Amino acid sequence: MKHKIFVVGMGPGKENMMTPQAMEVLEASDTIIGYPVYLNLLGEHFREKELLSTPMRQEVERCRMCFEEAGKGKTVSMICSGDAGIYGMASLMYEIGREYPEAELQVIPGITAANSGAAVLGAPLNHDFCVISLSDLLTPWERIEKRLAAAADGDFAIAIYNPSSHKRADYLKRACDILLDHGVEETRACGYVENIGREGTACEVCTIRELRDRTVNMFTTVFIGNSQSEIIDGKLITKRGYQV
Amino acid sequence: MKHKIFVVGMGPGKENMMTPQAMEVLEASDTIIGYPVYLNLLGEHFREKELLSTPMRQEVERCRMCFEEAGKGKTVSMICSGDAGIYGMASLMYEIGREYPEAELQVIPGITAANSGAAVLGAPLNHDFCVISLSDLLTPWERIEKRLAAAADGDFAIAIYNPSSHKRADYLKRACDILLDHGVEETRACGYVENIGREGTACEVCTIRELRDRTVNMFTTVFIGNSQSEIIDGKLITKRGYQV
Repeated sequence: MKHKIFVVGMGPGKENMMTPQAMEVLEASDTIIGYPVYLNLLGEHFREKELLSTPMRQEVERCRMCFEEAGKGKTVSMICSGDAGIYGMASLMYEIGREYPEAELQVIPGITAANSGAAVLGAPLNHDFCVISLSDLLTPWERIEKRLAAAADGDFAIAIYNPSSHKRADYLKRACDILLDHGVEETRACGYVENIGREGTACEVCTIRELRDRTVNMFTTVFIGNSQSEIIDGKLITKRGYQV
Repeated sequence: MKHKIFVVGMGPGKENMMTPQAMEVLEASDTIIGYPVYLNLLGEHFREKELLSTPMRQEVERCRMCFEEAGKGKTVSMICSGDAGIYGMASLMYEIGREYPEAELQVIPGITAANSGAAVLGAPLNHDFCVISLSDLLTPWERIEKRLAAAADGDFAIAIYNPSSHKRADYLKRACDILLDHGVEETRACGYVENIGREGTACEVCTIRELRDRTVNMFTTVFIGNSQSEIIDGKLITKRGYQV
């Protein structure tokens, strides 16, 4: 029989936003592996499990650890915040899984920041949309730039992940400038949410011209409306097209 | 005090993929309103609630019904499959809400087909991605075409909603042709999932050349990889960029 490994999206953090399916597989696991911050978000009743981790930037080692522990006969879950398949560990697990043919992976989806952040702001992604990360740790900046330009050309609503970090303090400004250069008007309706589904959730709506000069932290998800988006009663709304 | 109305994403259908938060607000509601198919997906214990509906295409009337019922002093939930804010009723609820200033809306996010379908196929959306609906009921086809072209130009992974219907039998073929015309190579890794999170879940991986000639039904979500995507052991994988 193959060793089963679950790659689990835990949602934004609060336990009531994690699916029962995710909860079930974590409860069925002997060992839960993840980035330390995510392990700390787990409820008290998971403290009896074997909880293993590797530091930030050691994602390859963390994934490998899952297969090694599963090889000892344990049921293993790798946890990711949000959705394991959206900027999470799912694809890396499959890549490393090539070396471990006796293991079988199952991805358990979760609520990602595009969805949970959108719900806080209103309905910014209620038509065709793009999700783009501004982190250039693993992606050349030129590719990010090209995607921002294409998103503007296609008049997509956009969710931006990783809009800022210590080293990338001006990346959101650069991203806004690319969008503005590609035809997005200065009054375009935008918004951002901090600490989605955790302590201290806060959100703000503004124009892209204002957004350009805002300072956001690394726990923020940014939303850019499409050309039809509007701010209605403080909420960022991207319409489906119904005649009201 | 304002009348509270919840706009609830119920996920793909199975109760174990609906968040506890969604379950809580449905349990707290006197009245649940939704498209009949979605009401039927609710568990037995919701049968005691007042369940109201309007036929397909009467979405405006369905939304208005929420505000009218809430105005009678009831706690009301509008349910949508997947996420209420992703091709769901959230934005229309805010638009109609302008006429009902005494009502307060809260969106409860859910697992949308991009996330749940991706989990079935492996990890097709594990880098920047677009979500595009091929339904031209509310969106001019030219706009859909422009977005497909932009998605190809930006080398996004793509999730396609509503790839087909009786009246739009050839839309997926047309979409593939637009992507192929915009530089997507014929061997591009793709996949599709039918009946996600419901009875009869089925999936398939293929190239875009093969996808172009497949017949899919309206309960299918289609995934197109980006130029780096690969089929690994039958799974569709879009890489993050880690050195393995």
